[in-house]
Amino acid sequence: MKVQLENVLPADIEKRSFEIIGEELGRELDPDQELIIKRCIHTSADFDYADNLKFSENAVQKAMEAIKKGAVIVTDTNMAKAGINKTALARFGGEVHCFIADEDIKEMAKANGTTRATACIDKAAALGKPVIFAIGNAPTALVRIYELIQEGKLKPELVIGVPVGFVNVVQSKELIMSLPDTTYIVAAGRKGGSNIAACIVNALMYKIDNRRS
Amino acid sequence: MKVQLENVLPADIEKRSFEIIGEELGRELDPDQELIIKRCIHTSADFDYADNLKFSENAVQKAMEAIKKGAVIVTDTNMAKAGINKTALARFGGEVHCFIADEDIKEMAKANGTTRATACIDKAAALGKPVIFAIGNAPTALVRIYELIQEGKLKPELVIGVPVGFVNVVQSKELIMSLPDTTYIVAAGRKGGSNIAACIVNALMYKIDNRRS
Repeated sequence: MKVQLENVLPADIEKRSFEIIGEELGRELDPDQELIIKRCIHTSADFDYADNLKFSENAVQKAMEAIKKGAVIVTDTNMAKAGINKTALARFGGEVHCFIADEDIKEMAKANGTTRATACIDKAAALGKPVIFAIGNAPTALVRIYELIQEGKLKPELVIGVPVGFVNVVQSKELIMSLPDTTYIVAAGRKGGSNIAACIVNALMYKIDNRRS
Repeated sequence: MKVQLENVLPADIEKRSFEIIGEELGRELDPDQELIIKRCIHTSADFDYADNLKFSENAVQKAMEAIKKGAVIVTDTNMAKAGINKTALARFGGEVHCFIADEDIKEMAKANGTTRATACIDKAAALGKPVIFAIGNAPTALVRIYELIQEGKLKPELVIGVPVGFVNVVQSKELIMSLPDTTYIVAAGRKGGSNIAACIVNALMYKIDNRRS
């Protein structure tokens, strides 16, 4: 078996990966969005993210401001929470919550006949703090965010809307993108995931730090 | 904005998703491998997994036996660890470890000039227990597994080799697939991820339970 490993120092792997992504993309990206898009490709090896990521006006700048102000990040899975760089986040005074396994969420969901993800959004809204949602799994979470925004009960700093899947995923993202005054980063279509949700949060933090990959 | 949500009960979403995947695939899969492949597509909305997943001979049956015997699962990221269904795993007496953030790993990696992922594999080998590796991030972890197997110092029950990325990822997977007596499930090519690593572990457990999706 002749397998030739490329001789790249561990510290240089990410830089080299971003170079390869840039070469294979073969086109310029919006400078504000570039590092976010490339990191999603880096996380998935899927170039579809070059086309499916949709940003509301000035979303990246507004998102970076929110992170710098220490906005609370709320994820819909513990996997997305695990993927967010806590060391980077701590420097901005931010914290990340995932309520999905909380006992009160189970009870709320049962009492109201909703998914647990829906109940998590109600709990996040009740925090009364500036919130960034990073939703990589549950379309019902996005639908609930949409409803609460429409009802004037929620005004998130940013909605990262990247659930993955086949039932109501596309629609839930369209709902978020229909909101005129909401800052969002959405992966249109079926693709996304907890890894992509975490990756977008990390990319925004690294962009604040001026990391080039 | 006219967005029409599909009326599917939360409990039925997964079943409906698997139906859609089956319809769009439009071909039969190996019955042993079917639920693993479909769950990877379910996790990523990426039909590439129908073609890129490679199984050593009887890998699924052997993997299920190892889980039933309570093999220890070792992941290379906390994200993969977070994605593994702990309730399901506990019923088989299994446990899941991720050593990547351990203090001794940092020191070992520094002392030996390796990545932390490499050091994690050495630590796992030293457990002296039946181990399933679920590697979704670090090609260096797969390379180390390959080396230790070649040297006769490691005989894992199963290697789930699904790192994602652009540098040495393809090669690290080829190394694993070149091993004649090693049970593996590998996503050939660049794709994979912590979510896919966790998903394959979960799919194997659900298959033992005879869940149909």
